Amino acid sequence: MPSSQVVIAVDVGGTEIKAALVSGCADGDGADLREVRKLRRATPKLPDGTETADAVVDAVCDIVAELGEGVRPDAVGVVVPGLVDDQRRVGIFSANLGWRDYPFGDAFAAKIPFPLAFGHDVRAGGLAEARLGAGRGLEDLVVLPIGTGIAGALILGGRPHSGGGYAGEIGHLVIADGPECACGQRGCLELIASSSAVARRYTERTGKAVSGAVDVAAALREGDEDAKVVWGDAVDALAKAIAQLATVIAPQAVVLGGGLAMAGELLTGPLDARLDELITIQRRPALRQAALGDRAGCLGAALMAIGAAETAEAVDAVDADVAEEDR
Amino acid sequence: MPSSQVVIAVDVGGTEIKAALVSGCADGDGADLREVRKLRRATPKLPDGTETADAVVDAVCDIVAELGEGVRPDAVGVVVPGLVDDQRRVGIFSANLGWRDYPFGDAFAAKIPFPLAFGHDVRAGGLAEARLGAGRGLEDLVVLPIGTGIAGALILGGRPHSGGGYAGEIGHLVIADGPECACGQRGCLELIASSSAVARRYTERTGKAVSGAVDVAAALREGDEDAKVVWGDAVDALAKAIAQLATVIAPQAVVLGGGLAMAGELLTGPLDARLDELITIQRRPALRQAALGDRAGCLGAALMAIGAAETAEAVDAVDADVAEEDR
Repeated sequence: MPSSQVVIAVDVGGTEIKAALVSGCADGDGADLREVRKLRRATPKLPDGTETADAVVDAVCDIVAELGEGVRPDAVGVVVPGLVDDQRRVGIFSANLGWRDYPFGDAFAAKIPFPLAFGHDVRAGGLAEARLGAGRGLEDLVVLPIGTGIAGALILGGRPHSGGGYAGEIGHLVIADGPECACGQRGCLELIASSSAVARRYTERTGKAVSGAVDVAAALREGDEDAKVVWGDAVDALAKAIAQLATVIAPQAVVLGGGLAMAGELLTGPLDARLDELITIQRRPALRQAALGDRAGCLGAALMAIGAAETAEAVDAVDADVAEEDR
Repeated sequence: MPSSQVVIAVDVGGTEIKAALVSGCADGDGADLREVRKLRRATPKLPDGTETADAVVDAVCDIVAELGEGVRPDAVGVVVPGLVDDQRRVGIFSANLGWRDYPFGDAFAAKIPFPLAFGHDVRAGGLAEARLGAGRGLEDLVVLPIGTGIAGALILGGRPHSGGGYAGEIGHLVIADGPECACGQRGCLELIASSSAVARRYTERTGKAVSGAVDVAAALREGDEDAKVVWGDAVDALAKAIAQLATVIAPQAVVLGGGLAMAGELLTGPLDARLDELITIQRRPALRQAALGDRAGCLGAALMAIGAAETAEAVDAVDADVAEEDR
């Protein structure tokens, strides 16, 4: 029986840090969490990546002090974007915030006097969707936020799979001949099917400026032929990528999140139809809508912190036993 | 500290059953196994798939009795080909042997009076390569036997990932426009890069009959231009598939096995070069040659049996404790 914990969860985003004091308990199957206090702060951004990371660490420590006032948290969970090595607790690379190989784990451990969990924002969000949201009760799933880019969180056998920090780069599956990607390849999924790609391709095609994929979805609802083509390309590419996931890892469900998934049935309707054509011998993944919105990363950080608190408790219990026997 | 076990391991293949009495011990990191007695038998094959499965069960029971003579094995491990649901212990489908949804677990449990492990031949072979062979010491790897078809075993976070029996169908990754596959899609990897595809495509191109990919490799060594094209297509398709694996699951290594991998450097040389071009932001998987040959499945069944024996021991120990307390 897991015990109830009070933890501080911090989700460092490209523009905003979301944080909460969370009370609740969790085990392998599910969790019950309550956000007791919440706050948001702008993410500090300096010309130099390492300086940015230093400033992020300071900002997180201030947030922990503020949220933890009058409470002694059982643990703190922090998640950051980019490529993240959970085991070595290193931020390998962030395109947005500029750091490379920054030792966040050591930096936080030096300043935060509580058990610490550190990880990746997208994988943490995936964990939260798996335990608390749209993936509840499933063993094998992919949580796929579709925004400016497309990165996925893989939950396999009930556990997040990180591949040393490199797993889940689904936006860089090569799907078709296509334009050159910043990653160095051609035809990457996110050049066709991310929210920003849908907006960009519609503008390229029509010359009309749009504020985002939501405008293309609106045009599609009104029968705009160009929107049909651009949206159809995105659906086709996503379906092909999901079919590849079904072939390799066979998830029970793909949980769609981020900007593009806000289109709801407009996305899932044709995507389901195209998947029915592409899936043959594979296990057919169900499509589900993400349930936790932009709180997913913070709730995932809370789940990780609860895990760290329980590990610390178990170690304390063993230490107490040893002390008892020594007397 | 794991204890030493004596188990019987049985690998049911499409044409042959390989079995062994194995003594040894294993834990999460490695294992030390010795095949004390070995035997091989032809796989029974009847016109009807269910009758074939019944006959396989009888043959396995005979083998267990023969190998177990004078020994009381701690457990038995059996692996079978096709699509296999390890959790429900069901053979979902075997194209070669014809069964569908056959309850192997129940059938063996009714006839074998020892703890039983049941699973999939390719995943068992992958587990053996991970613990005893080419993948020793790695957490995340793909073991890829390339034979008549191409199916992979995924070991992620040190554990086999089965996806309900459907994971690792890497031969059916859609790589390029190509001929129609038996699976219902077009352009599947195994139509271009399996051992039999390499032989078939060479014959289609030249009209010359070959006995297998080994003949194409021999022609390539002699500078045959058609062999160059066919082999080059296979290498290119394999590299693209491995790049997709790197993008999604980020293995540390891909262990190549089966007929095509026998070509050694002739395969890995150009494959490494092509991967260097395709891998950009991904973790670059190392290519390794499988180390256990056609014993991998049997050794994997032994590892699974050792796991089942240890679980049974732990349950017995709890039962003994309870009985002790009840007195």
